Amino acid sequence: MVDIIGNIFEHILSERVDEEFTDLLTAEGIRIERIVSAGQASPPGFWYDQAWSEWVLVLSGSAGLLFEDEPTPRELKRGDYLLITAARRHRVEWTDATEPTIWLAVHFGCSLPKPDDGSTWKR
Amino acid sequence: MVDIIGNIFEHILSERVDEEFTDLLTAEGIRIERIVSAGQASPPGFWYDQAWSEWVLVLSGSAGLLFEDEPTPRELKRGDYLLITAARRHRVEWTDATEPTIWLAVHFGCSLPKPDDGSTWKR
Repeated sequence: MVDIIGNIFEHILSERVDEEFTDLLTAEGIRIERIVSAGQASPPGFWYDQAWSEWVLVLSGSAGLLFEDEPTPRELKRGDYLLITAARRHRVEWTDATEPTIWLAVHFGCSLPKPDDGSTWKR
Repeated sequence: MVDIIGNIFEHILSERVDEEFTDLLTAEGIRIERIVSAGQASPPGFWYDQAWSEWVLVLSGSAGLLFEDEPTPRELKRGDYLLITAARRHRVEWTDATEPTIWLAVHFGCSLPKPDDGSTWKR
């Protein structure tokens, strides 16, 4: 069950070692997720390779997103958005070391796994 | 054609009378839109009544969103998000008069009209 109302800047843990992933909405064909990074990067040699598309928006902090088909990372700062089309391999090269990087990620498409929560929502 | 990269806080017109609606992404089953309000409200007696669901996030400013099935508007401030399920009638009672209210609206669902741009994306 996912609560349908909340604040995206609240409940950020200050002492995290790992990135924090929170589903804000799941329904058929869509998943909206908050990701909070605190200086992490993708593991060496790791590439995300997703069957669905993902639209990301950086709400605070900054990050370097590298596509396998581009020579250098794209720097994303507060407010920047970008579409990662399905099957386009990418990785996070770096995230801001001085403040949390808050990402809004909208995963969508027919290839997205079906939600396992029955898509019931609390009002 | 929708550009797949941009900054959500840029290119906001300062002298607007109307609300400003910009599609940031359109694809089958999803449309991501930026809405900039400058004190506007829905016209008297008007209710949005959509066949698809809409997830909204307030990125700056504030607004009062009234559901027809609730007695008073919900006040949304920076960072607040909320799901408007399909066919749930609602209206914007007020938006911030002192600063622009920037909304991110994610429209989704099978009932969403198909995009007319052929879903071609610029990188």
